[in-house]
Amino acid sequence: MSVVTEIESLNQEFYAAIEGADLDRMEEIWADDTGDRVAMCVHPGWSMLTGRRAIMRSYALIMANTPYIQFVLTDVWTCVVGDVAVVSCAENILTAGDEGETGFVAGKVVATNTFVLTPRGWKLWIHHGSPVLQGEEDDEDGQEVV
Amino acid sequence: MSVVTEIESLNQEFYAAIEGADLDRMEEIWADDTGDRVAMCVHPGWSMLTGRRAIMRSYALIMANTPYIQFVLTDVWTCVVGDVAVVSCAENILTAGDEGETGFVAGKVVATNTFVLTPRGWKLWIHHGSPVLQGEEDDEDGQEVV
Repeated sequence: MSVVTEIESLNQEFYAAIEGADLDRMEEIWADDTGDRVAMCVHPGWSMLTGRRAIMRSYALIMANTPYIQFVLTDVWTCVVGDVAVVSCAENILTAGDEGETGFVAGKVVATNTFVLTPRGWKLWIHHGSPVLQGEEDDEDGQEVV
Repeated sequence: MSVVTEIESLNQEFYAAIEGADLDRMEEIWADDTGDRVAMCVHPGWSMLTGRRAIMRSYALIMANTPYIQFVLTDVWTCVVGDVAVVSCAENILTAGDEGETGFVAGKVVATNTFVLTPRGWKLWIHHGSPVLQGEEDDEDGQEVV
């Protein structure tokens, strides 16, 4: 299995853990903090969370408050530089509406997920997700690779 | 000069280039695209831009449409892993109001800036900036390092 395939599979695991509200799996996916390297996470619209403990607490909160969520990833793009790999992707998100509503809510988030090779294998070091607030004309621009 | 000092100085340069609307300086700061590694940029609320050309064009557009902008960086946090370094920071932004208005507009963006060691020295590989839409209680959580 190539490194890119391994990383992209791990990236899918990350979203599957959120979909399945599986905090144990999430703990397994994230890198440990070391003296030099600290886990970082930006949820869409949030400030930066630093350190495993704060990040895991945020996921526990998100999972507890999300009755249904599904991710369809598009524009997946992976670069590997030594012991660091970055996956960029668009998260096309479907969530259940608020209690009492019947429909679903769709949203789009752009993410950069940075993985690092640790003694326990490749682990997620940084997740940065941000809301896409602009129209599709920017999208086309973004897909142009030169 | 330590690597962390060098990277944080380069990070400041990046924001100074925007403040000074200096596209040549910006060209110098960003890494070249290679076969394996492509420059990536997410402006707050935008989709992903990939590749130097699309990114430089976006900065030309931003600079042309920004009469005044000033960045005050807080919560600067730098991690180095081999030939990759990540600076996380909060961008406290002051911009001029629309034409005809007199005041300034303040905003807050959280950024992860990923630098890579190239034959031309450390260069900016990925900029991901996202709007902070939530209140300060999240900020405190984010500053807790465990």
